[in-house]
Amino acid sequence: MCRWLAYSGSPLLLDTILYKPAHSLIDQSLHSRMGVETTNGDGFGVGWYTDHADTPAVLRDVGPAWNNRNLREIADHVESPLFFAHIRASTGTAVQQTNCHPFRHGRWLWMHNGAIADFHLIRRELCLLVDPALFFDIEGTTDSEVMFYLAITFGLDQDPPGAVARMAGVVEHAGRERGVEFPLQMTVAVSDGESVWAFRYSSQGKSRSLFYSSRVDSLRKLHPDMAFLQGVSDETRLVVSEPLGDLPGAWNEVPESSYGVVRPGADALLPFTPQAA
Amino acid sequence: MCRWLAYSGSPLLLDTILYKPAHSLIDQSLHSRMGVETTNGDGFGVGWYTDHADTPAVLRDVGPAWNNRNLREIADHVESPLFFAHIRASTGTAVQQTNCHPFRHGRWLWMHNGAIADFHLIRRELCLLVDPALFFDIEGTTDSEVMFYLAITFGLDQDPPGAVARMAGVVEHAGRERGVEFPLQMTVAVSDGESVWAFRYSSQGKSRSLFYSSRVDSLRKLHPDMAFLQGVSDETRLVVSEPLGDLPGAWNEVPESSYGVVRPGADALLPFTPQAA
Amino acid sequence: MCRWLAYSGSPLLLDTILYKPAHSLIDQSLHSRMGVETTNGDGFGVGWYTDHADTPAVLRDVGPAWNNRNLREIADHVESPLFFAHIRASTGTAVQQTNCHPFRHGRWLWMHNGAIADFHLIRRELCLLVDPALFFDIEGTTDSEVMFYLAITFGLDQDPPGAVARMAGVVEHAGRERGVEFPLQMTVAVSDGESVWAFRYSSQGKSRSLFYSSRVDSLRKLHPDMAFLQGVSDETRLVVSEPLGDLPGAWNEVPESSYGVVRPGADALLPFTPQAA
Amino acid sequence: MCRWLAYSGSPLLLDTILYKPAHSLIDQSLHSRMGVETTNGDGFGVGWYTDHADTPAVLRDVGPAWNNRNLREIADHVESPLFFAHIRASTGTAVQQTNCHPFRHGRWLWMHNGAIADFHLIRRELCLLVDPALFFDIEGTTDSEVMFYLAITFGLDQDPPGAVARMAGVVEHAGRERGVEFPLQMTVAVSDGESVWAFRYSSQGKSRSLFYSSRVDSLRKLHPDMAFLQGVSDETRLVVSEPLGDLPGAWNEVPESSYGVVRPGADALLPFTPQAA
Repeated sequence: MCRWLAYSGSPLLLDTILYKPAHSLIDQSLHSRMGVETTNGDGFGVGWYTDHADTPAVLRDVGPAWNNRNLREIADHVESPLFFAHIRASTGTAVQQTNCHPFRHGRWLWMHNGAIADFHLIRRELCLLVDPALFFDIEGTTDSEVMFYLAITFGLDQDPPGAVARMAGVVEHAGRERGVEFPLQMTVAVSDGESVWAFRYSSQGKSRSLFYSSRVDSLRKLHPDMAFLQGVSDETRLVVSEPLGDLPGAWNEVPESSYGVVRPGADALLPFTPQAA
Repeated sequence: MCRWLAYSGSPLLLDTILYKPAHSLIDQSLHSRMGVETTNGDGFGVGWYTDHADTPAVLRDVGPAWNNRNLREIADHVESPLFFAHIRASTGTAVQQTNCHPFRHGRWLWMHNGAIADFHLIRRELCLLVDPALFFDIEGTTDSEVMFYLAITFGLDQDPPGAVARMAGVVEHAGRERGVEFPLQMTVAVSDGESVWAFRYSSQGKSRSLFYSSRVDSLRKLHPDMAFLQGVSDETRLVVSEPLGDLPGAWNEVPESSYGVVRPGADALLPFTPQAA
Repeated sequence: MCRWLAYSGSPLLLDTILYKPAHSLIDQSLHSRMGVETTNGDGFGVGWYTDHADTPAVLRDVGPAWNNRNLREIADHVESPLFFAHIRASTGTAVQQTNCHPFRHGRWLWMHNGAIADFHLIRRELCLLVDPALFFDIEGTTDSEVMFYLAITFGLDQDPPGAVARMAGVVEHAGRERGVEFPLQMTVAVSDGESVWAFRYSSQGKSRSLFYSSRVDSLRKLHPDMAFLQGVSDETRLVVSEPLGDLPGAWNEVPESSYGVVRPGADALLPFTPQAA
Repeated sequence: MCRWLAYSGSPLLLDTILYKPAHSLIDQSLHSRMGVETTNGDGFGVGWYTDHADTPAVLRDVGPAWNNRNLREIADHVESPLFFAHIRASTGTAVQQTNCHPFRHGRWLWMHNGAIADFHLIRRELCLLVDPALFFDIEGTTDSEVMFYLAITFGLDQDPPGAVARMAGVVEHAGRERGVEFPLQMTVAVSDGESVWAFRYSSQGKSRSLFYSSRVDSLRKLHPDMAFLQGVSDETRLVVSEPLGDLPGAWNEVPESSYGVVRPGADALLPFTPQAA
């Protein structure tokens, strides 16, 4: 399993979010509190959107995040209004760059915590459901990447929540055909550079932890002295596998079987149900 | 493209073959003379059989062979009667451990130089021809590994030359269906720990270079003063992408469309033709 | 800080000791119980003596031990009568191969858990005390490697316990001159391929954990059904940062300020006191 | 030996300079024409100045530049008005991140092509001449990094050309005392984020190649149709180990024993002579 965070809001040095908080993602790479494993040291990745290019940048490496100097450099020198970060605890697949999150396709970034149960039983079947024109683009061996390509196949570009629902439906169907009781466990974030969609779902109804930060204008009233809150826009928002600290009022659990949209204007929190593809 | 060597004979420190020769495989990693590229720096691997285990050991890494200290250590301290070594020049697929040769399945080692032309067009189709029970074992994204799993699917265990012929037949068929004129280019070595089979074939009839060493007893007569030849058995044999030096009489080209078998007792050199699967 | 083990006895596949025990060193890389850190994921190394060469082999890498495939391969295929293994938790120095233990010089292997307090204050001074002929051989930046070269400078070849005592004396002297109250914290193993010396010492008298295994003949009487104990010689011995399991009677703490010698014939456990160089 | 480039001028995506030119630095990593080695595959680094931080960012890794995906990502997504890039061919010292250029100290970046002859003879002596307060900051084992710390010791902050001259003087003196006829061979670039100083010098008077680009306003007259030249300021300048292409009039050799300054306002080209420290 893994831990991740998605940031959207006022442009910030990545360091502000990745390293500075008391229980930052880097701290979680060694001392996760809510993850299946304490240690998330099987690779990491960070993806960020920038004005300089049409596609987001992705920096990924196979060692632990906590001792990676290039990640430290990027965090100290790159500013972005929308970025993803992910730390990996492999459930068996190879520790290699192409298995590190976030995955990218065109303008899209995708990252995942969870697993397809008994993936070895249905990997082939799921790969066959991927649009043949995309098959060659699958570079790694994770369930997470196959989920991404299924979502693209099922219309991510036109209808992100629908595409993810159809992906989940297909995974559950394939697993159940093989006798897997609870085929899917996922918290997923996906972005096109403007909106972020974050999903929390598991076949069993016992999903991995997922939280979103409160609106900044509300937090400012609670914590008028916090300098950080003065410097960012009302719409600045974080979605995280586990809270980055214990600021009262700051963190809200994403309910089971639901998804949120973070975007310019009003955000939304909605129910999520897998669908037939 | 790549360079490789296969050794079979008296147990030797790997160093004797990997580093000591004037134009050793390590030298070829920087200064290949007959390869498509001068530099073969996109990963390497060595596989060796030992009495201590049922399966061969495989050490692979993503950096260049020429500066890898762990390879140097293994070469200086490990002795084996049968080993493979491979240096990689990627034709585009990711530089990662799971794309490095040799590949292993049970007792089998496999390595390849060459390419399936327009692999992106037929990767999916070829993957579907792999025994579904083996599909999950494909860890990388190279054509070489898919070729290996096709050969296993087509009976490598029972009939290695036949299985490789059927793999080649299937690849050529798939390519030609997509309009690829010359779908396959390969020099392949495969071993079960007792015999080594080495294949040289290309659809175009212009295959990558491949050589085998002369019988040691013949070489001893030509070069009675060479200490190395005194220390190894008559049956000691090398198959290499390019000669490791310029000893007169030592190296013989494997003919186009043929394969050799190196094994205890008489070796053999035979014609090779792709077959329908 | 770090964790390590030293094995001496009947030739064994490294796997038997490195991976098989319930609380093996690989398990300790994720879940150390007695270390300063739970996670020891900043590189690892294994060194082994073999008949094939005058010097021990050393395999080291910068990622975590728990997911390293090459370590797994070596453990599954290499047998040795005397080997060291080490997992690293950096206290700040770079995560690079040249900072991974064990260190080697000629036939000698050296590994360390602990630290020279305020090493930045006295690194230069300690480096100057190293034999100038050896200065260029220092490849990394750890306190551990400087300790090794000091011990070599002070006669490791002739008198290992004396050389280590003089190294410790010099480190304590240098630290105290700079006002450091407790300059040295160490558990060290060193071997010439025949004997293993293991030291437990700290200026404060609160040293990191260190254990040695009981004599195999005694353990066999306690546990007559344990197959493993039937297969190894009476003299087989382990020295470890923390016990590899909870077999009653198997593990004994090395006392504070003492060192042990493991060698053919009777082993010994003796007091250790730093000396002036 | 190595190859490098320094860019100063209109803010550009790194890609424009690192990958796009016909004989880009990435191409030189495989096919250097003027270097001592054809292949420069023992690590790489890129350092860039940005408005987001007081210090430049440095991304370094130990594999070859030509296949590194993170370098590709940074080049495609990061824009900078002043950056360094370096590809390494080790002359023996370890291939590790701390031996990759550029080196950084505060706002300063430093990179080097060349070598101190017989560095093993004088490494210790040179290290002792480094300001003791800086000794601990030396993280790697290259001559290049020691040269940087000597230059800092000798006043890089106040007088860059003088500091480099004193560094060179000290190296030559130390080498000659040991009987080394030609102790120093260097092309060096150093920057504080505003100016770039580039030095070409060797004790023998046969220095490694170094070129600077012509003024952009002159080039525009020669090549009025080149879109690239329309998009950058008159003061945009490159200093490179070897020309990035064969545009007539674009490249000028830096004379032996001289250095250039690239800065806002008029650049300068001046003689360089080592001095006593």
